[in-house]
Amino acid sequence: MSANRQFKLAARPVGMPKESDFSLVEAPMPVPGDGQVLVQTAYLSVDPYMRGRITGVKTYADPVNIGDVMVGGAVGRVVESKSPNFAVGDFASGQWGWREHAAVDARALWKLDPKAAPVSTALGVLGLTGMTAYFGFLEICKPQPGETVVVSGAAGAVGSLVGQIAKIKGCRAIGIAGTDDKVEWLTKELGFDGAFNYKTTSDYPAKLKELCPQGIDCYFDNVGGAITDAVFPLMNVFGRLSICGQISQYNLEKPELGPRLLAFVLVKQLKVEGFIVSRFQSRWAEGIAQMGQWLREGKLKYREDIVEGFENTVKAFIGMLQGDNTGKMLVKARD
Amino acid sequence: MSANRQFKLAARPVGMPKESDFSLVEAPMPVPGDGQVLVQTAYLSVDPYMRGRITGVKTYADPVNIGDVMVGGAVGRVVESKSPNFAVGDFASGQWGWREHAAVDARALWKLDPKAAPVSTALGVLGLTGMTAYFGFLEICKPQPGETVVVSGAAGAVGSLVGQIAKIKGCRAIGIAGTDDKVEWLTKELGFDGAFNYKTTSDYPAKLKELCPQGIDCYFDNVGGAITDAVFPLMNVFGRLSICGQISQYNLEKPELGPRLLAFVLVKQLKVEGFIVSRFQSRWAEGIAQMGQWLREGKLKYREDIVEGFENTVKAFIGMLQGDNTGKMLVKARD
Repeated sequence: MSANRQFKLAARPVGMPKESDFSLVEAPMPVPGDGQVLVQTAYLSVDPYMRGRITGVKTYADPVNIGDVMVGGAVGRVVESKSPNFAVGDFASGQWGWREHAAVDARALWKLDPKAAPVSTALGVLGLTGMTAYFGFLEICKPQPGETVVVSGAAGAVGSLVGQIAKIKGCRAIGIAGTDDKVEWLTKELGFDGAFNYKTTSDYPAKLKELCPQGIDCYFDNVGGAITDAVFPLMNVFGRLSICGQISQYNLEKPELGPRLLAFVLVKQLKVEGFIVSRFQSRWAEGIAQMGQWLREGKLKYREDIVEGFENTVKAFIGMLQGDNTGKMLVKARD
Repeated sequence: MSANRQFKLAARPVGMPKESDFSLVEAPMPVPGDGQVLVQTAYLSVDPYMRGRITGVKTYADPVNIGDVMVGGAVGRVVESKSPNFAVGDFASGQWGWREHAAVDARALWKLDPKAAPVSTALGVLGLTGMTAYFGFLEICKPQPGETVVVSGAAGAVGSLVGQIAKIKGCRAIGIAGTDDKVEWLTKELGFDGAFNYKTTSDYPAKLKELCPQGIDCYFDNVGGAITDAVFPLMNVFGRLSICGQISQYNLEKPELGPRLLAFVLVKQLKVEGFIVSRFQSRWAEGIAQMGQWLREGKLKYREDIVEGFENTVKAFIGMLQGDNTGKMLVKARD
């Protein structure tokens, strides 16, 4: 097996990405240098932030250019090691992107303990996703017991964790999701106090008022757009809004207008803050330890939506952008 | 002189308030009770926040109802005292609204020292206006030396102080105002590093880029609308936006739409916070002391735009909403 399949960006997507925006190519098997290991991809992560990386606009990170291998988090098994820190058979997570094998500096890898938790969780609850929920909610919203927390994209990888953390912190958790099955999962399995399907609800403000009779103290936003427009007027004085994602806007071919929201920010003295999880990187170990403890205590549940086969990575990515997944969307590249 | 003129709200304004939305009425001269003083109004304040109070919507404060005397800050001379803390002839500031005389609890008054500063400053740089600039800018924007600070409504009572405080703190200060005279005042007299007239500038983003080559770190917003829309895309990573006012929106007959701004909040990791100055009330003495010191040191300049005659209060209020004033708009009710 000397060929190494990988996905390269073939075209800048216009609106929702298409399969033809990526090309599946074969490259030679990489050879690890000193201090490197050769990893064989087991799981690939597909995440909303990737949509921003392929637009060609520099934001907080360099864009992926046409012809570049697609970026992203992955978990894999070490098949060759030139580092004293990794042995063949070890599992590791890292940022080697959409490829079946990669030669990676050992210092850029995080060693996983398959006995402590399934290795795939390094891309979810115990990885970027979990840290996004943990730090992005707790540090920015600073939720207090008894407060009402609303989460958009609540059945997604991050949102489903935010609602559960809100419950752990003694808050009332209300979720917004896009199917009745997701709503049922949130309320029956994850312990959300209420949830609604935004695709079958016409009057968001009325539904939110019904589910949040005391108003909204914290809002964790993955979605933006009309859902978020409905939240602002219901925020309580000194409310906090953590802006994690705006997935409703990522695939618009041209920006849409919306109601002006700053008057609510003013009269309710709201604090609205955006974040990229990397700003909390120095506290990663703390977040992983706490999320791991809550998992072991049974206080956190998670679901993985797994697409089989490396060649289906683009399908999985597009499906995630369309909201097909419940919980964390992953690609299983190999057993 | 037994009659006591006062302005009552006669109708809820639709759009820009009209003179007929208020009625000038005579009431009997009030008689102070125990612990009260009778004050004779010297200066009245007209401020943007008053527009919100007369809409009939409860925000952070109760609305002024039809038939109520209009609320607001004032400075006056004590003409009769039933409090050991005030003597006849003392000057005081308080919130007795648009009336020529008022009987006020001594505890609700702030005694002024006419030798320390002109008493009118208790409505401006050493009053609500000054505290709005001081705390609303320093506490929310937390400006650092070398940062670029943009102020909208920069020639207004609050904005003109914010830009000067930014300079004191070692920042680059850029102002946006509505006449060439105001722009000249900001740059030639107050030390702003740059300013522009939004009424004669067609491309706000281009002008802001020219004046802020290093991007914008702090934005102090009095105005909202199209000016603020142009600021968001130019904010630097970890920028802070203090939302003090949205005067461009107060007199719209129906809300306008605007570009969605949360994507900038997200990718630039911005913090957008609204405030009402009363939240800093416990630190008032600190703010007054610091602003007074800067005044005495010549580091702060202020201008008062004084309309003569109590009967012209509504004209002054409407003029202020239309941006007629440079600096603090006051009504001089009596010498």
